[in-house]
Amino acid sequence: MSISLPREPDFDKAGGLVPAIAQDVDNGEVLMMAWMNREAFQETLATGRAVYFSRSRGKLWRKGEESGHQQQVRQILVDCDADTVLLKVDQKGAACHEGFRTCFFREVGPTETKIVAERLVDPDDVYKK
Amino acid sequence: MSISLPREPDFDKAGGLVPAIAQDVDNGEVLMMAWMNREAFQETLATGRAVYFSRSRGKLWRKGEESGHQQQVRQILVDCDADTVLLKVDQKGAACHEGFRTCFFREVGPTETKIVAERLVDPDDVYKK
Repeated sequence: MSISLPREPDFDKAGGLVPAIAQDVDNGEVLMMAWMNREAFQETLATGRAVYFSRSRGKLWRKGEESGHQQQVRQILVDCDADTVLLKVDQKGAACHEGFRTCFFREVGPTETKIVAERLVDPDDVYKK
Repeated sequence: MSISLPREPDFDKAGGLVPAIAQDVDNGEVLMMAWMNREAFQETLATGRAVYFSRSRGKLWRKGEESGHQQQVRQILVDCDADTVLLKVDQKGAACHEGFRTCFFREVGPTETKIVAERLVDPDDVYKK
């Protein structure tokens, strides 16, 4: 069975947007999941800075453009179906808009949900609300 | 700012399906990304075995039911928007149907795409094609 070597995700098959997972290149922590269109992917590849497509705002989202919490991309991987991207990144500050290092700061258990991470920063300070 | 403690992802907001990332609980490797509906999530929570919803087959997919490559779930996390799940799992064998430990076995660089992992098993042996 031969394995293809695509130059980018299959955006057409995915309807234009593919999930993109950002993982801390140093400690392996999964930081966040966002979406990329072709333009976001190509800008990420060209600049080495993580760029996503914001579905709520309907435009490119250069990670950290408001918060300063940028992601330098060290490696870009694509999955077997070429419809999901994995970025290994150097994360500056908090990846999460709630002020946590990772967006995955809540554990869902059989009987309760609890916070399992420490908040790094107060979102009100970061976003000047 | 108060943080909610949801008992499950917000399936309604997400249109019924949310992305679910599986990560190796031991070495932090991101293994795969698939989808969950409420039934898949609740069965995963109740049984401790990863269950997804196969969009192509339109039904629950109990990971490993064909390949034997099951995932024992050690922790379930939900992201800040409650629309993505992260599973920390004990992966038996290869997570990827192509026979690699992880689905993210191809690196996309500025000038070329290359395979950056070793194949564990021959898919033809696993799936008896």
